[in-house]
Amino acid sequence: MTKTASIIGGGVIGGGWAARFLLNGWDVRVFDPDPEAKRKIGEVLANARAALPMLYDYALPAEGALTFHSSITEAVTGASWVQESVSERLELKHKVMAEIQAANPGVPIGSSTSGFKPSELQQGATDPSKILVTHPFNPVYLLPLIEVVPSPATDPAVVDVADDLLTSVGFYALRVRKEIDAHIADRFLEAVWREALWLVKDGIATTEEIDNAIRYGFGIRWAQMGLFETYRVAGGEAGMRHFMEQFGPALKWPWTKLMDVPEFTDELVDLIADQSDDQSGHLTIRELERKRDNNLIAMMRALKQQGNAAGQLIKTHQQTLRPELEATKPMLSTRRVVPIDWTDVNGHMNEGRYGQLFSDAAEEVMAYVGADDDYIAGGNSYFTVETTVKYIAETHAGESVDVWTTVTVGEGKKLRCFHEMKRTSDGELMATCDQFMLHVSLESRRTCEPLPHVREKVEALAALHAEE
Amino acid sequence: MTKTASIIGGGVIGGGWAARFLLNGWDVRVFDPDPEAKRKIGEVLANARAALPMLYDYALPAEGALTFHSSITEAVTGASWVQESVSERLELKHKVMAEIQAANPGVPIGSSTSGFKPSELQQGATDPSKILVTHPFNPVYLLPLIEVVPSPATDPAVVDVADDLLTSVGFYALRVRKEIDAHIADRFLEAVWREALWLVKDGIATTEEIDNAIRYGFGIRWAQMGLFETYRVAGGEAGMRHFMEQFGPALKWPWTKLMDVPEFTDELVDLIADQSDDQSGHLTIRELERKRDNNLIAMMRALKQQGNAAGQLIKTHQQTLRPELEATKPMLSTRRVVPIDWTDVNGHMNEGRYGQLFSDAAEEVMAYVGADDDYIAGGNSYFTVETTVKYIAETHAGESVDVWTTVTVGEGKKLRCFHEMKRTSDGELMATCDQFMLHVSLESRRTCEPLPHVREKVEALAALHAEE
Repeated sequence: MTKTASIIGGGVIGGGWAARFLLNGWDVRVFDPDPEAKRKIGEVLANARAALPMLYDYALPAEGALTFHSSITEAVTGASWVQESVSERLELKHKVMAEIQAANPGVPIGSSTSGFKPSELQQGATDPSKILVTHPFNPVYLLPLIEVVPSPATDPAVVDVADDLLTSVGFYALRVRKEIDAHIADRFLEAVWREALWLVKDGIATTEEIDNAIRYGFGIRWAQMGLFETYRVAGGEAGMRHFMEQFGPALKWPWTKLMDVPEFTDELVDLIADQSDDQSGHLTIRELERKRDNNLIAMMRALKQQGNAAGQLIKTHQQTLRPELEATKPMLSTRRVVPIDWTDVNGHMNEGRYGQLFSDAAEEVMAYVGADDDYIAGGNSYFTVETTVKYIAETHAGESVDVWTTVTVGEGKKLRCFHEMKRTSDGELMATCDQFMLHVSLESRRTCEPLPHVREKVEALAALHAEE
Repeated sequence: MTKTASIIGGGVIGGGWAARFLLNGWDVRVFDPDPEAKRKIGEVLANARAALPMLYDYALPAEGALTFHSSITEAVTGASWVQESVSERLELKHKVMAEIQAANPGVPIGSSTSGFKPSELQQGATDPSKILVTHPFNPVYLLPLIEVVPSPATDPAVVDVADDLLTSVGFYALRVRKEIDAHIADRFLEAVWREALWLVKDGIATTEEIDNAIRYGFGIRWAQMGLFETYRVAGGEAGMRHFMEQFGPALKWPWTKLMDVPEFTDELVDLIADQSDDQSGHLTIRELERKRDNNLIAMMRALKQQGNAAGQLIKTHQQTLRPELEATKPMLSTRRVVPIDWTDVNGHMNEGRYGQLFSDAAEEVMAYVGADDDYIAGGNSYFTVETTVKYIAETHAGESVDVWTTVTVGEGKKLRCFHEMKRTSDGELMATCDQFMLHVSLESRRTCEPLPHVREKVEALAALHAEE
């Protein structure tokens, strides 16, 4: 059954929520009185459609339906989740909560607020138990983090619902143990922002130099381990206690110098805005967004390949997208979008990635015949000994492609597949691959017979594919 | 001529410096009175040898010679750069500076200090003009950022020397405009550290939850754009000024609540160390280091493929590693280390990456015959139409491999190469690839004759390779 989410308040954040739900197959009902809302959400959605499918090695489900509504009452009808992302004014949020709860009593309501605690949002509500903070990070359609903040009045069952639902659309639901101003991440962002304003104001560094200090140093470190695990490693063999003993007092020493708050004057705004123009003004915001999204996808895919950090989340989530293969002739072994990191100097998919696509297709066929991850962990696998790839048509990042596989030989140690790669949209043939594999023992690294249950399925598939 | 760097003070930071210089072909002379110094530097060097060569698509130069010395005087003899990484005690640093300058007058001295300003280091020095701060980030052999901080007494020519030299070994030299406590990046780290201590102390989140809040959210954002460019994008089409007007006051609001400093008690140390053990205690520090390094390599390689952020620096630096091909039969078209992101579920290099390796080899041959980046930018290129790869032996991440290429057909639009991939260490044949390419116009996407200067070089190479 298609699930329905209601988005109250569009803009970059609401649009990001809408895109995340839609691309994961949910229907989305939007209320935003801004006459520009449709256009704004459309732009976020265009970015999301270009980006999110590239994260995964499997196709996303069919997109849900997006509808716009002229009242909150209408927008929340039939919704199993309401995401509130209106302006950060408490009385407005109270009014919105009241309307939602009048129209759809019992629906869980997540607020995107960074400025209010859930207990503040709940003031005067008909049913405070259904209200909690679910605070996302931009771009909402790509970044996994959602801070889930209940108040003591929030029903724990609603928190569980939120957790399951957010996880199902690829988020990481971080349950914040106690409500607190600015939740968790924004407290760090505040602290860093304040320091950054000082550094620019005092002429120590420009905005670009500060960005470089972050992205060439601790930024890339934090992207994979965060703060504490990074310091644990820095402490060396003696671990975290040693790190704190060694660096704790040294770290304490400059603190008192960093406590002042710079005054937020027009001059400071101009100084920073001008430097930012110098740094990035040659790119439009759309170009910057695409650059950011491409970087995020490439890095998250790299982490996925390593099975670490955000990549581990994506790896887990994409298992929910993995289809069951069907024993047709030929069989659809892979459907996926060409990701941005598969392109080369000619602007199209690099020839090596054709090989990878066919290799991935073969892995799906292997899994189908029982030579899956467990089988490999048990010490058996198939190794490819020869492939011939014919390149027929070009393909580019963002295009959806299918691999159709025929098992041409499946007897004893031998497994031979003929793969045809076609464009999903029109079925045009883009490449073929004749792939010859042999079954091996991962212990001896020599060929051997497959285990009986695999051999039987391989032979059955070969027999099916041999039929006239 | 081999260059010589002197490392005063080993440990994780000094060892990282030593590794960075050695792997970039410098001789390194170490002084550290710690009897464990040799072992400690050896461990950092082992990590660096496993990691740094994977960043690049070309081989690093031959490693320099590492020697250990029993005095500063001996260690700095003949050095063109001295890197000081001794303990953060000012009187010790003054003593070390004096000894260095007595033994090797005029040598530039960079200090790894995070706690002192260059003007403090220069107090009482024989020649203050040669002293500056060059503050690195762990792991020094992988992270590009060096904060270069001169005082007014530092000779600007020495700063230029430092900049050139650091760039030549793959660093990004960030010149800090004025000296300041904690330089730039550590001011952010202090601010975040303080907030993190509060969050743990107050029971808002555990160390692991805080790490997740960073690495699933803003950490991965900062790794590619830093702070200001990220906010510029968040400001939308109206840019940075709009962002500041919109969020500036809101950001100011919680500041005053974040100013207190948590007391650094034993209880706080225990709380954090225990949580860190729960989070990461199942992995040894060596395992965490390898995981960190693999993540960093995979992410930086992903950024390199995008040509952005740290990846752009690496891309630029690796051009200095790119060798000139020599017209031998066969010709050595590629020598490189198999990177960590090229392995698959079987633990060896994925079959698709053989294709990429051969494709990269063909690009080098193309560049050799004049079909280089400029030629491609001018609208011409070669597209591969068919490849046959034979997989003969397995290879794993970290192994150095060579591709030897013979041009078997080179006439008109046709270019056919036979590549042999061999292990560098013993020349064992690991795979072959028969690759057939056609020359194309990138405008019409159809085949066409190559430009004369390319055709001539292709034919000459084919003729050389056809000789008995």
